[in-house]
Amino acid sequence: MKAAVMVRVKPEVLDPQGDAVRRALEKLGFEGVRGVRVGKLIEIEIEGDADPTLKARLEKMADAMLANPVIEDFEVKLGA
Amino acid sequence: MKAAVMVRVKPEVLDPQGDAVRRALEKLGFEGVRGVRVGKLIEIEIEGDADPTLKARLEKMADAMLANPVIEDFEVKLGA
Repeated sequence: MKAAVMVRVKPEVLDPQGDAVRRALEKLGFEGVRGVRVGKLIEIEIEGDADPTLKARLEKMADAMLANPVIEDFEVKLGA
Repeated sequence: MKAAVMVRVKPEVLDPQGDAVRRALEKLGFEGVRGVRVGKLIEIEIEGDADPTLKARLEKMADAMLANPVIEDFEVKLGA
């Protein structure tokens, strides 16, 4: 089945990439952009059913490798 | 309001980063992972109401700067 892990920079951590995107959008003439945060969207095709066990496995993967828990939060969605 | 732009490598385009993640997960002992694709999750705080005009503005931003339309698809979600 399909699953998605969304990785976001923690709110209290600076995101220079997001700031650069915001400034670039402004320079291109796009107005009204107050803030931009750039995260990762990791889509996984994995064996198993949409149950708590699978979700727990994906959370372990995210914690161990997909995200850096010091500066990033992650969210796992099944069937995404 | 908040909006999200999800940027994914097109299905017909190779994703070496995703393949590297899949192999690394396997090496770490995570089984059953058939495929991994790594995309971007761009979250934007923008002035305006959740209407088709705002969605069109965000789609222009995505097409002009956030995604590379040659190799990537994007999806805009309002209020995400």
